[in-house]
Amino acid sequence: MTITSQDDLSATIEDALRRRLTERSTAAAEYGDEFAALWTLAADHVLGGKLIRPRLLIEVHRALTPGPSAQEADAVVELAANVELLHFAFLLHDDVIDGDLIRRHRPNLIGSLAGISDDHATAAESDLHWARASAILMGDLLLSSAILGFARAEVSANTRVRLLDLLEHVVLETVAGEHTDVGLSDGVIRPDLQRILAMTAYKTAAYSFALPLRAAAILADAAPAVESSMIEIGRHLGLAYQLQDDHLSVFGDQAVHGKDAYADLRSGKETAIIAYARMTSEWSSIGPRFGRAELRPDDAARMRQLLIGCGAESFVRSLVDDQLTAVHAALEGGEGSREIPEAARLAISAVARIIEGRRR
Amino acid sequence: MTITSQDDLSATIEDALRRRLTERSTAAAEYGDEFAALWTLAADHVLGGKLIRPRLLIEVHRALTPGPSAQEADAVVELAANVELLHFAFLLHDDVIDGDLIRRHRPNLIGSLAGISDDHATAAESDLHWARASAILMGDLLLSSAILGFARAEVSANTRVRLLDLLEHVVLETVAGEHTDVGLSDGVIRPDLQRILAMTAYKTAAYSFALPLRAAAILADAAPAVESSMIEIGRHLGLAYQLQDDHLSVFGDQAVHGKDAYADLRSGKETAIIAYARMTSEWSSIGPRFGRAELRPDDAARMRQLLIGCGAESFVRSLVDDQLTAVHAALEGGEGSREIPEAARLAISAVARIIEGRRR
Repeated sequence: MTITSQDDLSATIEDALRRRLTERSTAAAEYGDEFAALWTLAADHVLGGKLIRPRLLIEVHRALTPGPSAQEADAVVELAANVELLHFAFLLHDDVIDGDLIRRHRPNLIGSLAGISDDHATAAESDLHWARASAILMGDLLLSSAILGFARAEVSANTRVRLLDLLEHVVLETVAGEHTDVGLSDGVIRPDLQRILAMTAYKTAAYSFALPLRAAAILADAAPAVESSMIEIGRHLGLAYQLQDDHLSVFGDQAVHGKDAYADLRSGKETAIIAYARMTSEWSSIGPRFGRAELRPDDAARMRQLLIGCGAESFVRSLVDDQLTAVHAALEGGEGSREIPEAARLAISAVARIIEGRRR
Repeated sequence: MTITSQDDLSATIEDALRRRLTERSTAAAEYGDEFAALWTLAADHVLGGKLIRPRLLIEVHRALTPGPSAQEADAVVELAANVELLHFAFLLHDDVIDGDLIRRHRPNLIGSLAGISDDHATAAESDLHWARASAILMGDLLLSSAILGFARAEVSANTRVRLLDLLEHVVLETVAGEHTDVGLSDGVIRPDLQRILAMTAYKTAAYSFALPLRAAAILADAAPAVESSMIEIGRHLGLAYQLQDDHLSVFGDQAVHGKDAYADLRSGKETAIIAYARMTSEWSSIGPRFGRAELRPDDAARMRQLLIGCGAESFVRSLVDDQLTAVHAALEGGEGSREIPEAARLAISAVARIIEGRRR
């Protein structure tokens, strides 16, 4: 298999995902129409992604292994599809926990199942129960499917053991990050900046960036220094991505980011923005509004101004810049950087640019 | 490793579970006290089980492979521990979906996290959010851990492929059954007896009985006829077990079964009992009370009388008997029955007797 353009690569990943989902939904069909419909809907949502994670895995692997056999290349595409399935499984359970019904400007899987329309994000409690239960169960299936996909990878026994160890670590770290995130929002864990930054890295960096980058290094049987660089780059990219996401949710243009505007402020999400604001005198004005479900748009806009005024906005923006600078430093001068081929540098820099470009 | 008595076997399984949980909770400790506490609590709940599923796997395997090597025996114990982890992961997500806080006479993991006491099964909404989110996440970890345990089994490549195929099928079937169960309760799927019996078998039989029995046959490299018998026996045992469980929830003594009394009637759970009652003239008296969250004990007691009077109770009791008779028929005269050793028959009959003994 020879792949050249970016579009071809996305099409190849989508084909692999479609094959997996079709094979599973065919097996699901014998359990009734409602279960089959859930699979069809899930496949539709899975295939709507930007495929940043699987593309990164394939591109970096290809850079590290310039002449893979057709069988090797196929195995890598299959693994990359599993990374996307894992991502979607985490998103589903995340949306259940956060009560979110909207993602990328349209109802997410839960919103679709609960029958909400695009701009009216409420539903009856009984519809929500069915929708959330379905999302928990579909998340279980996709999580299982992703792990089974790693378990069945057509690679050497040694490579498979290393991939499974990596996957286990990544699942633990992601769940730990999400658990801390919920504990902070629910007031069970005391918010401080250090704890919040660690959580921010755990819940996103591990599976979104460290997993594809390290998996690429393992599959290419790269030198240990290269794998170490990938861990470091993955952590910085992931932290930048999640901080940018938090920044966008509060300060971005809803017409662009496509999420429920001000949802983070209404749900009391403890982000680095809020942790910084808590340490300023403006918090006495921000605090009483923070985490109130009934927050009105004009109140939210006022909070946004206060968060800019107290320096929280520029603080988080500079954190993102710091992380992206660290990515470039690791690529250019880090321990294993001399062994990172130019094509891998380009693939990683492209992801860094995507994060930079999500400014508004 | 030589194991003789029943108590030794349970202790061996508990040791394997404890090792796995300790190893995981040690890895979890670096992510903060709250996450470490969740693991400790989960380990406590996992280790409180009766170990029916892992015991069945080990006993049947041992009967089919009278002289396993120490390494084989260890691999089988490890796999059996994974079956118990899978069971607990499903229970956790099931309890989240059903809103249950009590299991085996005490708060379940969610109830413990929400801080309920033994007999006062309510909690504040914010505490419940934290508790349920934690249960979703811990379920994800245990599900992952169980599948990774299968993936790492120290068995031949061919055996591992067969085990992973079995596991994938079992996870799909269990989730399909649970999804149908929720759809029936939420009024999304129209209740009819055939659909309800299929759901009842899917959600329990696959992972609780077919999985351990078939895994034992695969690990012993038994003849295809034996594996077919195990599938059949697993289905009948599972259906008997779940029907008995439904029967117990409505007609059993709460002091014995240890669940929230009448929870099934209050939540509108569509069981075979209800499907039968719907077809009788008594339904006009039962229907208006069914599925009402505020159902009072005297109303529930009246419903119980009506369900006995209309024949639903004896119908389901006879269904349980039919399934157990089918288990014995498959053991004594089925296609592969001549190749099922006496010790395996005894182990399976012991489980059938446990189900029979759960009458009240």
